[in-house]
Amino acid sequence: VKEPELLALLRTLPLHPGALGLADDAARLGDLVLTTDVIVEGVHFLATDPPADVAWKLVAVNLSDLAAKGATPEGVMLGFPLSDDTWDRAFVEGLREALSTFACPLLGGDTVRGPRVLSLTAIGVAKHAPTRSGARPGDALWVTGTIGDAGAGLVIAQGKPGPDSLLSRYRRPIPRLAEGRALAPHVHAMMDVSDGLLLDAARLAEASGCAVTIQLDAVPISDDARAFGVDVMTAATAGDDYELLFALPPDTAPPVPATRVGTFGAGKGLTLVKGSVAVPLPERLGFTHG
Amino acid sequence: VKEPELLALLRTLPLHPGALGLADDAARLGDLVLTTDVIVEGVHFLATDPPADVAWKLVAVNLSDLAAKGATPEGVMLGFPLSDDTWDRAFVEGLREALSTFACPLLGGDTVRGPRVLSLTAIGVAKHAPTRSGARPGDALWVTGTIGDAGAGLVIAQGKPGPDSLLSRYRRPIPRLAEGRALAPHVHAMMDVSDGLLLDAARLAEASGCAVTIQLDAVPISDDARAFGVDVMTAATAGDDYELLFALPPDTAPPVPATRVGTFGAGKGLTLVKGSVAVPLPERLGFTHG
Repeated sequence: VKEPELLALLRTLPLHPGALGLADDAARLGDLVLTTDVIVEGVHFLATDPPADVAWKLVAVNLSDLAAKGATPEGVMLGFPLSDDTWDRAFVEGLREALSTFACPLLGGDTVRGPRVLSLTAIGVAKHAPTRSGARPGDALWVTGTIGDAGAGLVIAQGKPGPDSLLSRYRRPIPRLAEGRALAPHVHAMMDVSDGLLLDAARLAEASGCAVTIQLDAVPISDDARAFGVDVMTAATAGDDYELLFALPPDTAPPVPATRVGTFGAGKGLTLVKGSVAVPLPERLGFTHG
Repeated sequence: VKEPELLALLRTLPLHPGALGLADDAARLGDLVLTTDVIVEGVHFLATDPPADVAWKLVAVNLSDLAAKGATPEGVMLGFPLSDDTWDRAFVEGLREALSTFACPLLGGDTVRGPRVLSLTAIGVAKHAPTRSGARPGDALWVTGTIGDAGAGLVIAQGKPGPDSLLSRYRRPIPRLAEGRALAPHVHAMMDVSDGLLLDAARLAEASGCAVTIQLDAVPISDDARAFGVDVMTAATAGDDYELLFALPPDTAPPVPATRVGTFGAGKGLTLVKGSVAVPLPERLGFTHG
């Protein structure tokens, strides 16, 4: 079963109203927002990645989903297979750093024996959590920070020499929690960019029943990434950015630093332009693990 | 790292007050009760177990923890690695049966590619959730249902002929949700029996700062299990019972069918008696996966 097929099958199960039809990144339970992310060795992280960084990433990818809901982390539930002593201890130290840094305490969990399939359920509190589905034709598409650094960091982690600034974007992503809270009351729709800017923008547009046009010249790329040789199409299809992608009315400026990268329109689908010239879509818009 | 060592290490992390020092089976968040259980192929279930039964078990083991808190299931978050088409589809059908049977809808989750390490976080609602730690000297120790059926069921699942009634106790455990809700206002302490009656009774006593004596003649064993050849020590050290184990004041009768199997006392440790004769502890009190 491919991931989209399985998702379609899961949607036929008895769903909680707060599941929002499994069409959003997080579930709602009163003022609580809940998200689960699972990371697998060899799929979402490298066997050679330092275990403390793997722990950090497990926390960060979950809190990034909370950030996109404007939520404040309340706690996490951990599913942790024990493997070897050194790895496990280093993992716990990385967990300590991440939980302390993001002020997100451990609530509970389960330890088992088994292969490294690490799961975390993060719980946050948000009064009014935006969804993916509220963008309207005419809205502007914005993104925080820079795109493509983590993709370059993965190449560096795999052995190519490059700056630590990029490697750390891959290994120690920082969920945009404060930005998410500031943005939540203003945005029509918001999500985090985890699987590639183009793919996630297409998902945001689809969930909102809109078309979206991205101006490639506007995609924010860091100086380090440019110097590393990252071009805009590589950046916009790379994963693990963990920036926030959001829709604002055309006359609204975001309350946090961000870059306007596109515009929503009537209809459907993703269009790319460079200046005023249409650019064909790349074969792969981003990462899917299904 | 062995499981108890890792648990000690995890206890040094920033903990949520609702984590109760990681000394309980479920976390508290206001009126919510949260529990995570992970099951691993080859450790918690057999590769040959029908996938629908694996899904059922994943739900049941989590809801059994909610039952021990007197909680009503609100929803579950699923971490599901995709493997092969037939297995995955059958798993989802088992999930459907379990979620429908226990009126517990899906809230969300994550699907990935990876080995079969299945995780579930179950969320329930309980006004006053009992802990493991409230038993007092003089309290009686009670258990619902019968003990050892699932252990016999595992032997049957591994190939020895035996009745379906026992096999289904292993493959399709029924969390004692109604019993848990009825018991919660009355008990001093409660937990579910998942790793063996003796081991879990020792844990309940330890968490409560008490000693406990179990009368082996009183351990409830089903006629089918007796006919299958299950003796009391095998039953009392087998896993996967998912019955409720609880402490009540000596003069209080439980509001649901249950068997009195022991007495809490001052001091610490587990003592076994048969009639009025002390019985040495077996080498292994139950199952630990660490």
